[in-house]
Amino acid sequence: MSNEQLDQLRAKLDQVNLEILDLINKRAELVQETGQVKEKQGANRSYDPVRERDMLNLILENNNGPFEDSTIIHLFKEIFKAGLELQEDDHSKALLV
Amino acid sequence: MSNEQLDQLRAKLDQVNLEILDLINKRAELVQETGQVKEKQGANRSYDPVRERDMLNLILENNNGPFEDSTIIHLFKEIFKAGLELQEDDHSKALLV
Repeated sequence: MSNEQLDQLRAKLDQVNLEILDLINKRAELVQETGQVKEKQGANRSYDPVRERDMLNLILENNNGPFEDSTIIHLFKEIFKAGLELQEDDHSKALLV
Repeated sequence: MSNEQLDQLRAKLDQVNLEILDLINKRAELVQETGQVKEKQGANRSYDPVRERDMLNLILENNNGPFEDSTIIHLFKEIFKAGLELQEDDHSKALLV
């Protein structure tokens, strides 16, 4: 077993990390856009537990592992929370304009 | 502003969620494979802070937002931790065989 094999796996991991980074930021942009649309509509922009549950259900229906559902739920809840915090920041900035 | 616009954004969010799910699980497979290679080499499989710092540096160099670096660090540390826990589980199962 060569170190070349480990180096290749690490290069693949770095590549996947950057792909995850891109998607997480793309998701953040969509969340910001959603917040702006809701703001214009005068809709409630705050945390929506029903929508979050629907998103999680769809994600879990498509989870083929190796991560357990519990791990996927934990990671996505962190991603959702970061998105909500970004929306809150945008809202605060909008109020200051 | 129509609800159609919100529905479209939500559909895009669901799509991006599933893409993130796929990549997170793909990353988990690579982590498992790395653990197996290290195991065969008799190398230390445990937490490697230098490698983790290198991965984070590369990720942050490529972070163009909207998420702040601090949020990206938080999310990836959770992803790294989940990967390590998966490796530990695999190791425990291997010892039981």
